[in-house]
Amino acid sequence: MQHHFELASDNTAGAVPEALEALIEANAGFVPAYATDAATERARRAIASFFEHDCEVFFHLTGTAANALAFAHLARSFEAVLCHAHAHVVTDECNAPEFFSGGAKLVTLEAEHGKLAPDAVAKRLAARSDVHSPRIAAVSVTCPTEVGTVYTLGELAAIAAVTHAAGAALHLDGARFANAVVALDVAPAELSWRAGVDVVSFGATKNGLPFGEALVFFDAERARGFAARHKQAAQLASKSRFLTAPFAAFLESGAWRRAAQHANARAAELAAGARALGLEPAHPVEANAVFLTLGDDAKGALAERGWHAYDDVDPAGALRLVCSWQTSPESVQAFLADLAGVLA
Amino acid sequence: MQHHFELASDNTAGAVPEALEALIEANAGFVPAYATDAATERARRAIASFFEHDCEVFFHLTGTAANALAFAHLARSFEAVLCHAHAHVVTDECNAPEFFSGGAKLVTLEAEHGKLAPDAVAKRLAARSDVHSPRIAAVSVTCPTEVGTVYTLGELAAIAAVTHAAGAALHLDGARFANAVVALDVAPAELSWRAGVDVVSFGATKNGLPFGEALVFFDAERARGFAARHKQAAQLASKSRFLTAPFAAFLESGAWRRAAQHANARAAELAAGARALGLEPAHPVEANAVFLTLGDDAKGALAERGWHAYDDVDPAGALRLVCSWQTSPESVQAFLADLAGVLA
Amino acid sequence: MQHHFELASDNTAGAVPEALEALIEANAGFVPAYATDAATERARRAIASFFEHDCEVFFHLTGTAANALAFAHLARSFEAVLCHAHAHVVTDECNAPEFFSGGAKLVTLEAEHGKLAPDAVAKRLAARSDVHSPRIAAVSVTCPTEVGTVYTLGELAAIAAVTHAAGAALHLDGARFANAVVALDVAPAELSWRAGVDVVSFGATKNGLPFGEALVFFDAERARGFAARHKQAAQLASKSRFLTAPFAAFLESGAWRRAAQHANARAAELAAGARALGLEPAHPVEANAVFLTLGDDAKGALAERGWHAYDDVDPAGALRLVCSWQTSPESVQAFLADLAGVLA
Amino acid sequence: MQHHFELASDNTAGAVPEALEALIEANAGFVPAYATDAATERARRAIASFFEHDCEVFFHLTGTAANALAFAHLARSFEAVLCHAHAHVVTDECNAPEFFSGGAKLVTLEAEHGKLAPDAVAKRLAARSDVHSPRIAAVSVTCPTEVGTVYTLGELAAIAAVTHAAGAALHLDGARFANAVVALDVAPAELSWRAGVDVVSFGATKNGLPFGEALVFFDAERARGFAARHKQAAQLASKSRFLTAPFAAFLESGAWRRAAQHANARAAELAAGARALGLEPAHPVEANAVFLTLGDDAKGALAERGWHAYDDVDPAGALRLVCSWQTSPESVQAFLADLAGVLA
Repeated sequence: MQHHFELASDNTAGAVPEALEALIEANAGFVPAYATDAATERARRAIASFFEHDCEVFFHLTGTAANALAFAHLARSFEAVLCHAHAHVVTDECNAPEFFSGGAKLVTLEAEHGKLAPDAVAKRLAARSDVHSPRIAAVSVTCPTEVGTVYTLGELAAIAAVTHAAGAALHLDGARFANAVVALDVAPAELSWRAGVDVVSFGATKNGLPFGEALVFFDAERARGFAARHKQAAQLASKSRFLTAPFAAFLESGAWRRAAQHANARAAELAAGARALGLEPAHPVEANAVFLTLGDDAKGALAERGWHAYDDVDPAGALRLVCSWQTSPESVQAFLADLAGVLA
Repeated sequence: MQHHFELASDNTAGAVPEALEALIEANAGFVPAYATDAATERARRAIASFFEHDCEVFFHLTGTAANALAFAHLARSFEAVLCHAHAHVVTDECNAPEFFSGGAKLVTLEAEHGKLAPDAVAKRLAARSDVHSPRIAAVSVTCPTEVGTVYTLGELAAIAAVTHAAGAALHLDGARFANAVVALDVAPAELSWRAGVDVVSFGATKNGLPFGEALVFFDAERARGFAARHKQAAQLASKSRFLTAPFAAFLESGAWRRAAQHANARAAELAAGARALGLEPAHPVEANAVFLTLGDDAKGALAERGWHAYDDVDPAGALRLVCSWQTSPESVQAFLADLAGVLA
Repeated sequence: MQHHFELASDNTAGAVPEALEALIEANAGFVPAYATDAATERARRAIASFFEHDCEVFFHLTGTAANALAFAHLARSFEAVLCHAHAHVVTDECNAPEFFSGGAKLVTLEAEHGKLAPDAVAKRLAARSDVHSPRIAAVSVTCPTEVGTVYTLGELAAIAAVTHAAGAALHLDGARFANAVVALDVAPAELSWRAGVDVVSFGATKNGLPFGEALVFFDAERARGFAARHKQAAQLASKSRFLTAPFAAFLESGAWRRAAQHANARAAELAAGARALGLEPAHPVEANAVFLTLGDDAKGALAERGWHAYDDVDPAGALRLVCSWQTSPESVQAFLADLAGVLA
Repeated sequence: MQHHFELASDNTAGAVPEALEALIEANAGFVPAYATDAATERARRAIASFFEHDCEVFFHLTGTAANALAFAHLARSFEAVLCHAHAHVVTDECNAPEFFSGGAKLVTLEAEHGKLAPDAVAKRLAARSDVHSPRIAAVSVTCPTEVGTVYTLGELAAIAAVTHAAGAALHLDGARFANAVVALDVAPAELSWRAGVDVVSFGATKNGLPFGEALVFFDAERARGFAARHKQAAQLASKSRFLTAPFAAFLESGAWRRAAQHANARAAELAAGARALGLEPAHPVEANAVFLTLGDDAKGALAERGWHAYDDVDPAGALRLVCSWQTSPESVQAFLADLAGVLA
C-alpha cells in the first residue's frame, strides 16, 4: 500500500525553497550565538514589518512552546486562561500550558465551529471571582481555528473589547496565521493589534518553514522579563541563525503569502469536490482544512487506500484533511477519486 | 575593527557540510510528523550504534533542554542533583533545571579544574539526609568540563560507583561529548554506559550540527514517561526530520569524529603557542578549550583587536578560547600573533 | 439583622469539646517537633485503627493541601487526574492541584448528583492516549459528594475496578468522610481500601476539629518520598502536637461518629421540613447537606433574614444548606420557619 | 534516661497561656470561614498596630510557607533571591522556595556569624546579569540569624539601601522576630519598614503560639494577587479563627514581649555559665541561642545525659542550644551542671 501523508496535516510537508536557501546561506562564517546575530535581528525586523508595528519577538522550536510561554507570561500560577474547549492548547499540548505557567488553569467554553462568541466570553469573564477560583487573566483564540474556520475582524475586535474590559489580555494562537490573513485578504496588522490582540503565536512551520514559531508582543512592557523566561524554558537556540534566517526570507520574499494561498486554494478544491459528491463539510471551509463527516466504514476504506488523516480533532469525529503549500492539485483529485469510490 | 568570533565559542561556527546536505535531502516529500518519521528513526538507530547499546533517544533544541529535562526525570521536586559549582547547569541555564524539575535543588561542590572528585561526591552523598533537606537523587558530571578538562575512564567509573552505591543516578552533560571521546581515544560506550553513566546529554550542536542535542537513556525503564515529558516541555518538533536527519548523517559519515579532532587539534596548537609565549594555560588543555590567565589590560587589548571571548566561565577570570570544527590554523596563528603583541 | 452562619457550611462551626480538651492537654511540657512527637504517633495509630489497616499518614492544614499533594504524588506533571466537573478540586482550590503537581491536568466528567459513573470512567480511561494528551494516572471521587450524595460500596468498587484496570490509582476526597461512613452505616475500611480506594484525604475539620486533614496511603510503597513532598509543601507543622492530639482524641473517643450522626440527623430534619413545605431537595439527601431549588426572590428573602448560604456549589443554582455537629434542631426549625414565610 | 528537649529548639515548647485561652474563647459559636471572620480581622489589626503601619497580612501554618510564598511573590521562576549560604530557606526547607516560586534560584553568600554584609550584597547584586543567569529580584536576611546573632538597625538599613538601589526587594525572615526586637530594645517598626524591609515573615510559633506565621507586606501593591497565591498554596485555613485568635491575643496582651525577654534572658544565663566554664560561645549571643564548640566526645556525653540539641546548624559543628519562653532557669542550670561534668 502506498501511504499518503499529503492531507494528514500541514506539518507533513517540507520547507519552501526560499527557506532552505536562506538556511544554507546563513551557514557561512562565524557569528555570535544566542540570538545576538544579524540573521536573528533581521528576522525580528521582518516580523515587525510584517505586522507594521514595533514588537518584541522571540523564536521557538514549537508552537506549543510559543503558546505555553505566552500563557505563563500573561497568567500567574493562580490565574486562568479562557479558551475554546477544543483548542490545541487544551487538547494537544500535554499540559504544557499548565506546566509552563506553574499551574494556571485553562477554563474552557464549548462553541460551534471552533470560535468563541464575544457574549459567552463576556459572561464567563464576569462570573464568579473569589479567592477559591482563579481570576481569568487572559483569553486565547485560535485563528484559523482547529476546525479551519476564521474569525472575522469584527468578531475578533468584539472579543478583544470584552477581554480588555475585564482587565485581561488577548492572545491569538496563530499556528496557521498566514492562512487566515490570506483567507480574509487583510493585512496582518488588521488581524492582530488593530483588532486588539496583545500577543500572537505566529506560526510558520505549518506554512513552510523547517521550524518557525515566533511569539510576538505588541507592547514591550508586557514582554518585560520574557527573554529570561525564554532562556529558562530552553527555547533560546545557540545557533539561532538556523531558526531565524529562514523566517526572515520567508517573510521578505512573500513566500509566506504564496504558500498560504496555495494551501487555501487546495482546500477550496477539496471542499468543492466533496460537495460534488454530496458531502457538505462539517465546518465552513475558510482556510486550509476540510472536515468530512464519514462513517467508520468510509474512514476505514480511505485508510486502506493509504490516506492518513485524523478524526479526533473534530469533536464529532469528522475526518480532518489539511492542505499545505506542497499539496498538489493532483493529490486533491486523487483523494476525491478515492472518496468517490468509497462512497459509491 | 574586524570582529573575530572564531574562538569565542564553538557555537559561533556553522554546520558541517554533511549535516546541511542531509537536511536538504530530508526536505523531499511528505513524511509523518512528531518524531514518527524515518529520518528520526534513523537518527535514533545511529545513536544506538554510536553508543553500541540499546537506548531511548529524544531530540532537543538546546542543551539546556536536554540537561534540565534529564534532571526533571531523575529527581523529583523535593530531591536534588549534585554537580560542580561552576557547571553549566548551575551558572548558565537561568534556573532551567530548577524550573523543569519543579524545584529540585542543585547541590554544588567546588573542585579544581571543573572535575568532581569521587571522594568528595561520596562524602556529600553520605551527608545529612532528613526531611528538611533534599535527598540527592542524581549526580551530574560534565565531560569535557566547562574548563576544557576531561575525566579519565577511571575517574568517571569511580564517581559512578559511589553514585550508584547511594542509590542515585549518574548523568553526563556531554555538550562536547565528541571532543572528550576523541581526546581519550576511546569508544563512546566506554565514556558512557560502560563507565556507569545512566543518562547522557549528547550534544552535537557545538561540534557541527545546526541543532542537535540528544538525551540518551541507556535503560528504557528509567526513561519511562519521558516521551510525554518531552512533548510537555515543548521539545517535540513537528517537522522533526530537520532536527534528526543531520544528526544521523553526522554520526554515520564519521563527520562527528573529524570535527572533534579538528577542534581539539586547534586547541592544542593554541596552547602550544601560548606556552611559547610563556603563558601556561590555567587548566590542562585536554579537549577544545584553552584558558589563559591575562590581566585586564591584556584582555582589553585583545578585545580591541576584535577578539571576542569570555572571562566569566573560569572562576578565576582566565580568558576562555574555544576551537570548533571550523576554526582554521590561520585563525589560531592570528590570535597568537595578536597575543604576542599584547604581551610584548 | 442577626446573621445566621449555622447552615452556611460545616466549617462555620467550632471544634468539639473532646478535640479542644486534647489540645489543651497536649500543651504540657517539651516535646520533639516536626511530627516526631508522641501525640503525632498516637494520631497515626488512631487513624490506622480507624481504617483497620496499616497506613502512611500525613497531617495537613487544609483539605486543599491533602488533595493537591495526593494528586502531585499520584500523577506527574505530564499526566492527568480524572474527576467530576464540579468536584471541589476543580472548582474551589484555585489551581492548587495543578500547581502542586507541576501542571497535571484535571480531566473532568459531568455526571448527575455529583457521582461519577463507572461506565463513564471506564470509557474516558480508554479514550485517546498519545503523547500530545496526558495519560490519566489517577481517578478522584468525592464522598459524600459536593452535593451531599453518597456512593454505595458497590458503586465505589466498580469505579475502583475500572480505575485499576487502566493502571490508575483511586483517590477519595473525604472532606466529610465520617458523614458518609455514618450514612452508609459501614466501617471506614469498607468505604476505603476494601472498596479499592488507594489514597484518602480524610478530612475532620468540617466534622469538628480545629484543623485536621490527614492524607492516608494504604500502600506504603505508593507513599514513598511523600514525607519530603509534605515538608516541601510547607505542611509539616513544627509544633505538630497541636494538629494531631485533637485528631487522636476525636477518633479514640468516638466523637467523630457522634458528630457526623448529629449533622446527618439535622440534614434529614431539614429535608423533611422542606418536603413538608412542598420542596423536594435538588439532590438526594444522604449526608449532611440539603440543596433547595429556590428562585432569586426566595434566596434574597432568606438572606435578608440573615441566613448565609451558597448557591454556586450546585451547577443549577440550588441553595446549599449544610449541617454540622453544632447545628441545633432549633436552628433547623428556625430556618424552616423562615423558609415557610418566604415561600408563603 | 530522661530526655531533655528544653534546649533542643524553641519549637519543643508549648503555647503560652494567653494564646491557649484565646483559642478556647474563639471556639464559641458559628463564624464565617476562610479568614473572613472577626478573629482574623482582629489579628490583622493587631499586627498592623504591632508594626505601626498599614499592611497586608496572611497567616500560614509554617514559617517555610511564609518564606517560600514570599519568595514566590517577589521573584519569578527565572529570577533569584540572594541569601546567606546557611539561611534556613537554603538548608532546611527541602526546596520549598524553589518549588513555590517555580524554580527561582537561591543565590548564596558565605558570611561570618550568619549576617550578610552590605558590601558583599551590593557586589553580588552588581555582578553578571545576562539572560543565561537569573536576575536577583529579592534579598532575604534572617534576624535573629540562624546562629543567634542580630543585625543592628544600621546594618539592616545599609542592606536595604543597596538592595533597593538594584531594584530588588528586601525580605526579612523573622522566625524569631520578637527575640530580635527585644534584644535591640527597638520598636518592631524600626526593625522592619523603617529600616527598609519590604516584607516580613513574622514568626510567632517559636515564641509561644501553637501555630503562627504571618507574612506581612508593608506595601499593598506588592501584595497584589497574594490572596489567591495563599489559597492555591493550601495555606488558607477554613476555621481560621484557630490560627488567628491566639495571634491577636499574643500581641495585644504583650505576651510576645515577655516570652521573648524570658527566652533571651535564659540564653544570656546559659552563655554566662558556659563562659564561667571557659567556653566562649562560637557566635555572639544576642538573642535566644547559644552555640558551644565541643568535641564529639563532649557532645556524645551530653546526649547520653539526655540533652537533645543539633550540631548541624552551625557550619563548623558547634552545638546549638535554644531557649524558649518555657525554658526555666533550673533547666539552664541543670544543663550547665552536666556540661561542667562533661568538660571536667
